[in-house]
Amino acid sequence: MNHPSGISELVINRLPRYYRFLGEIMGEGNARISSRELSERMGLTASQIRQDLNCFGGFGQQGYGYNIEQLHSEIGKILGLDQPKKAILIGAGNLGRAIATHMAFESRGFRLIGIFDKKEALKGQIIKGLPVRSVEDLDDFCRENLPTCAILCIPKGEAEELCGTLIARGIEGFWNFSHCDLTLKYPGIVVENVHLGDSLAKLSYNIKNK
Amino acid sequence: MNHPSGISELVINRLPRYYRFLGEIMGEGNARISSRELSERMGLTASQIRQDLNCFGGFGQQGYGYNIEQLHSEIGKILGLDQPKKAILIGAGNLGRAIATHMAFESRGFRLIGIFDKKEALKGQIIKGLPVRSVEDLDDFCRENLPTCAILCIPKGEAEELCGTLIARGIEGFWNFSHCDLTLKYPGIVVENVHLGDSLAKLSYNIKNK
Repeated sequence: MNHPSGISELVINRLPRYYRFLGEIMGEGNARISSRELSERMGLTASQIRQDLNCFGGFGQQGYGYNIEQLHSEIGKILGLDQPKKAILIGAGNLGRAIATHMAFESRGFRLIGIFDKKEALKGQIIKGLPVRSVEDLDDFCRENLPTCAILCIPKGEAEELCGTLIARGIEGFWNFSHCDLTLKYPGIVVENVHLGDSLAKLSYNIKNK
Repeated sequence: MNHPSGISELVINRLPRYYRFLGEIMGEGNARISSRELSERMGLTASQIRQDLNCFGGFGQQGYGYNIEQLHSEIGKILGLDQPKKAILIGAGNLGRAIATHMAFESRGFRLIGIFDKKEALKGQIIKGLPVRSVEDLDDFCRENLPTCAILCIPKGEAEELCGTLIARGIEGFWNFSHCDLTLKYPGIVVENVHLGDSLAKLSYNIKNK
């Protein structure tokens, strides 16, 4: 799959990793890094790094290397991390609760503004400073607060049912922990799947065929 | 990357999804499915499906299609789901706790047999029927119980520190939720990364460039 801008998905998959490594390297006090050093740190080839970064116009200078802080900041902007998007979480079970509590949303381009669950018993519970709301309040909440991203931590059937409603309420992107393939029914949406069961089955294969 | 058997990683990535879809279709009561029908359900082309399954010897019959239950079972065996591997979880914080509680390990090729945390305060707490143990007991536990997989839900630094010890104790595969790249230091190990922060940053990019 090619992106509108013509940048391949493989390059985009690597961008968050560049951002993460540069963030770590920034903490070490050096101002710049050569593509060779960066490549050794990241386990990529230097030419791969130059090619990847050239997709976005290139940032290095011959003989100087990369300014670490500048490159980190530029990649952050490319990823849209400087423009936090409002996100809501659907499903305050074990996984949803852990995601809400564990994730540093702010440093990954998002702001968590609402948590919803259909279980009446959870209503009003506070998770990471936010009260759990009833899914019945989704409509009003979206109209007033305009979130553009939904995090789905609900069973497959519920996710498929809710997805259309969320799109109609202005949700453009889904972080999907539910075991369903939303783009089959809604091809136009942006979805990032975290299919934990598939991931575990793949690990099983790779251990078996080690 | 090619696997020892010469099967590309892209095919292997799709196997758990085949398994998942076939499991759903099995519940609908039909005995067989054509590659065309399966392709429509999964959003792949029929020729893609035939090519993928031919990597493992092929299962369909011209004019008959696939026997759903048989194909599901065969893919399960290919994935190694019929031979449960013993897994231990390191890190009983929000995320580790949710993973232990939420995941159906048994149907994904694993059996969770131990949970460890370095926090003394958590010791003895029961999560999914298992007591949280001290990481100091890891050595003895591994010697007695021979787990081959570790699930890492601990900070980056701790994961990097612990990885070598775990390998020495017989761990062959890692389900890695820690934000570190273990194969850089230990190139021979099997790792399946779930880098949630990277995933979220990628979603940010895709919403921005929608």
